[in-house]
Amino acid sequence: RINGDRLWDSLMEMAKIGPGVAGGNNRQTLTDEDAEGRALFQKWCEDAGCEMGLDTMGNMFAMRPGADPDALPVYVGSHLDTQPTGGKYDGVLGVLGALELIRTLNDLDVKTKHPIVVTNWTNEEGTRYAPAMLASGVFAGVHTEAWAKDREDAKGLKFGDELKRIGWEGEEPVGSRKMHAFFELHIEQGPILEAEGKDVGIVTHGQGLSWTQVTITGKDAHTGSTPMPMRRNAGLGMAKVLQLVDEIAWSNKPDAVGAAGHIEVFPNSRNVIPGKVVFTVDFRSPELSVIEDMEARLKEGAQKICDEMELKVEFEKVGGFDPVKFDDGCVTALRDAAERLGYSQRDIISGAGHDACWINQVAPTAMIMCPCVDGLSHNEAEEISKEWATAGADVLLHAVVETAEI
Amino acid sequence: RINGDRLWDSLMEMAKIGPGVAGGNNRQTLTDEDAEGRALFQKWCEDAGCEMGLDTMGNMFAMRPGADPDALPVYVGSHLDTQPTGGKYDGVLGVLGALELIRTLNDLDVKTKHPIVVTNWTNEEGTRYAPAMLASGVFAGVHTEAWAKDREDAKGLKFGDELKRIGWEGEEPVGSRKMHAFFELHIEQGPILEAEGKDVGIVTHGQGLSWTQVTITGKDAHTGSTPMPMRRNAGLGMAKVLQLVDEIAWSNKPDAVGAAGHIEVFPNSRNVIPGKVVFTVDFRSPELSVIEDMEARLKEGAQKICDEMELKVEFEKVGGFDPVKFDDGCVTALRDAAERLGYSQRDIISGAGHDACWINQVAPTAMIMCPCVDGLSHNEAEEISKEWATAGADVLLHAVVETAEI
Ligand SMILES: NC(=O)NCCC(=O)O
Ligand SMILES: NC(=O)NCCC(=O)O
Repeated sequence: RINGDRLWDSLMEMAKIGPGVAGGNNRQTLTDEDAEGRALFQKWCEDAGCEMGLDTMGNMFAMRPGADPDALPVYVGSHLDTQPTGGKYDGVLGVLGALELIRTLNDLDVKTKHPIVVTNWTNEEGTRYAPAMLASGVFAGVHTEAWAKDREDAKGLKFGDELKRIGWEGEEPVGSRKMHAFFELHIEQGPILEAEGKDVGIVTHGQGLSWTQVTITGKDAHTGSTPMPMRRNAGLGMAKVLQLVDEIAWSNKPDAVGAAGHIEVFPNSRNVIPGKVVFTVDFRSPELSVIEDMEARLKEGAQKICDEMELKVEFEKVGGFDPVKFDDGCVTALRDAAERLGYSQRDIISGAGHDACWINQVAPTAMIMCPCVDGLSHNEAEEISKEWATAGADVLLHAVVETAEI
Repeated sequence: RINGDRLWDSLMEMAKIGPGVAGGNNRQTLTDEDAEGRALFQKWCEDAGCEMGLDTMGNMFAMRPGADPDALPVYVGSHLDTQPTGGKYDGVLGVLGALELIRTLNDLDVKTKHPIVVTNWTNEEGTRYAPAMLASGVFAGVHTEAWAKDREDAKGLKFGDELKRIGWEGEEPVGSRKMHAFFELHIEQGPILEAEGKDVGIVTHGQGLSWTQVTITGKDAHTGSTPMPMRRNAGLGMAKVLQLVDEIAWSNKPDAVGAAGHIEVFPNSRNVIPGKVVFTVDFRSPELSVIEDMEARLKEGAQKICDEMELKVEFEKVGGFDPVKFDDGCVTALRDAAERLGYSQRDIISGAGHDACWINQVAPTAMIMCPCVDGLSHNEAEEISKEWATAGADVLLHAVVETAEI
């Protein structure tokens, strides 16, 4: 069993870096706070006897050697970056839960055949740099490194430049590692496990995602002296499209979801009719066909709305992944571990995207989830209990040790 | 007659300061560019033999002495600040047209009984600091100076601090000047004069304005893992309210207008359902009762929308003025001047707010407008012809000289 108190203390310690404004965290990727979080994680890994690897995308790999020099490592981890108003557990639990597993093996002096590598993937959240799960995506060969490094944040700062600036660009070629398996522990970020009183969720599938950036162009004009019939109000066009997004998502319930979290209005002046708006529509479903259908209906519907209003509309896909089915062997290892430890469990589909979704393309992969209060995440008030964290990390320990073989 | 070429050259010279991105200007109030524009204007005024006064709100007063030391000055002017993506003429034409009038009187060696004072009012546009026409409002006693100086821009910088920083806070108590009359030349910012082929518009009234800042609060949550029925999407609430604003404005046509130019979304992350949105609704009409009715319908309707969606909604009035009727004597002076000069004219209601709307409360005031291409303003593509500028400034010259008496 892992040491739940020690895990919790580490979570609280990490949460001191990049504090938010309401009890959570703002430790966005490639900020000074991200660098500080990485340094603390590295120190903890070295204290635990691991050797740190760092690739050219800033992904961190802390290795606990195995008994067999030829055995491929079992990887386990998640991400330390957060949303701008994020919680203390999203991602962090998966990294520090993996570190706790190493510490426990050290305490018990257990040697595994396969090395175990604790991983921190760069820019999972995707707020500062779209798309989400950027660096695990490059690792899995989904994006090229050059393209990823060319991504710009809202201020026009490039990913590659910011990674250099914070001092966490490594020399190891990204994606060069081969994995025996990959496991990720994460909070559910949804309401199911808490509602059903389950200790852990065994993630069999992940729903797919589509991010479409919509740009609507009208004409900047004076809000006072421009007669109503002469207006080409891009903000009003957006309002209609946002309602369409909601209708499309509801019409596919219970499976599909849709919303726009990111909205920018130009020139954003109280007495100027918006001449341009840019916003990103997030559609998700466990069914690829549903996602494709929602995308098509968005484009068709938004085009119709904008044509009627004499607005121009453009679409750009800025992120997305297909629904995922995790590896049967890894899923079984997690199920068996929960069973052996006596934790209540159920199978679950991940509503969010995770680094594991990309790594699943290059290695046998599975995920385990613990409940979170009210299903709330991407909110500073995100909360879990020490017991939930402990149960999740316990199951992780046992599945990883079984896979890494004693 | 004024010198149209000289006026045009000065307009083009001023437009070099704070250039926009598409041929217009970004010379927002209390920026370094505003300071640079003020310095150029001061130099031109001094070259024209005027003495510059500066009050504690940064309002500038360039005086051409009169023959009678006891006669109150005739004031004439507008503003040099622009929208973030503004045109070269909105406000600037009124200040430099007034300066051109002084230059013409100098050329002709005409001495008026009353002094003439060319005025540049601080922060007319209201983009960086709401409300619009802030400093002329303080001059007219509508706002207190302390309140005005406490206004904050989007970055939290206070008006008072920024005025000091750019070095344009004067010592003269604001509002201490008494005026014989005030005249303002401005571009129409609407389509009527151009459509009817009129040289000038004599502004008899100004429509009133109401700015209501609406804050809708929902709950930040994950766009992927939060089921549709659990969402409290503040962005979706805003979308519905924006449509309501449009419906309310249309239902009062042809008189009323309504839109939201300013929208902010929090935390503004692609995978976070907006937990909070703040936006400003701009309603206008020449009838006070219509404005009041629109405000009431907005509050009632938005409350209903938000109640149904379990969102919280709050309203704050951040700007506004009642419809204005300008001074009969000043209006007649402008009408007669246009008549004498042979320019075609019509009476017109100003769709926008102007410094003259506040000064009208403390002195006999009127405005003259010249056409602008396609009625477009608050857009970098704002355009007028040299002939239109010349006609407006000519009428201004004659009305001011008649009022200031030779
Ligand atoms: N787990 C998580 O919040 N990932 C961010 C990517 C997403 O939006 O699903
Ligand atoms: N003239 C002008 O654009 N004034 C700004 C204030 C307003 O929005 O009417």
